[in-house]
Amino acid sequence: MRISELAESTGVSVATIKYYLREGLLPPGTKVTDRLSEYDDHHVRRLRLLRALREAGAVPVEGLKGLVAVAEDEEASVHQMFGAACDAMAPPLTDAADPAARELADRLVERAGWSEVRADAPGRDRLADVLAVILGFGRRADPGTTERYLRLVDAIAEFELGIVDADQDRDAMLEQMVIGQVVFGELLLNLRRLAQEHHSALRFDSD
Amino acid sequence: MRISELAESTGVSVATIKYYLREGLLPPGTKVTDRLSEYDDHHVRRLRLLRALREAGAVPVEGLKGLVAVAEDEEASVHQMFGAACDAMAPPLTDAADPAARELADRLVERAGWSEVRADAPGRDRLADVLAVILGFGRRADPGTTERYLRLVDAIAEFELGIVDADQDRDAMLEQMVIGQVVFGELLLNLRRLAQEHHSALRFDSD
Repeated sequence: MRISELAESTGVSVATIKYYLREGLLPPGTKVTDRLSEYDDHHVRRLRLLRALREAGAVPVEGLKGLVAVAEDEEASVHQMFGAACDAMAPPLTDAADPAARELADRLVERAGWSEVRADAPGRDRLADVLAVILGFGRRADPGTTERYLRLVDAIAEFELGIVDADQDRDAMLEQMVIGQVVFGELLLNLRRLAQEHHSALRFDSD
Repeated sequence: MRISELAESTGVSVATIKYYLREGLLPPGTKVTDRLSEYDDHHVRRLRLLRALREAGAVPVEGLKGLVAVAEDEEASVHQMFGAACDAMAPPLTDAADPAARELADRLVERAGWSEVRADAPGRDRLADVLAVILGFGRRADPGTTERYLRLVDAIAEFELGIVDADQDRDAMLEQMVIGQVVFGELLLNLRRLAQEHHSALRFDSD
């Protein structure tokens, strides 16, 4: 298909498609003439992925590049692809995390039983950063409460991972992983907000 | 305490404190002389709240204003305060949501049993927006899967609401609600990302 048809079937403007081509986020089409290229289903799928990421997750262009690089590296295992996708979407912090908070983050990961998380995963520092804010409010949860919360999060993550269909090509799997990470993350937060409104009424509406 | 001490004990710069005072986000202190005001614990707590919101949640100034207005309206019930806080942090979308997606959003809220969610809660349109992206990928979950996911989210929200201590003044409750919404939202996403890395290794690392 032509670039104009590609734009039409994906809802991404021709200007944005040209930008993605320049940035290497979209592989070039097959040249027909000097000024004309043909695009196929692979381009449609990649564009839909990029569009969803920008709409739902506000992933910066650098993050998108990291993601595309992983998808195109045939040597990487699916799990490596997933780890790199996580890092692309949640890049390392510029400042080092507070050491006490980082220690707490590592303890939480251990208590949750997430033994497969890389020791240098940027997510550990990000977790430490949020914990530092919570600790700044002087809040500490008792071990039982923490345990229950970790178990719920674990169930959510295992459930979402289960949706990924392993019997498909790498681009399609990456698409599903990214949807899982970004779009289901948004879904989770939006559902949770509505659920909280409901439970707040049950708990506080008598006053 | 003086403004410089206020800055020191909250970690918010004097320039930012002056900005919050100008914007009405922080009530003025008690005038001692023409150029000197005294601040108290109420200011410390409000500043810690504003700081956490900015650090963890990137809430725009307009959202912060809505939140402060609710906290200072003694007529509002705790549940109304909570609803307004939700709206301030997730303001209505500028475009109307896709009608089909909005219908699906309403059905999900109904199926989850969240009968206390206002019919005009902006969160419904926000949910519809995310659902539209997911539907754009052609993904549809079977009813059993949806049911289980909704139940997990419901458990998380009920659990987080349970942390709010109802036996405290309105400012302190608002602080807890906002921490619950924004900071625990960040906590949830960060923990979930680490949990997914773990489960991805278990599922895909054999390749």
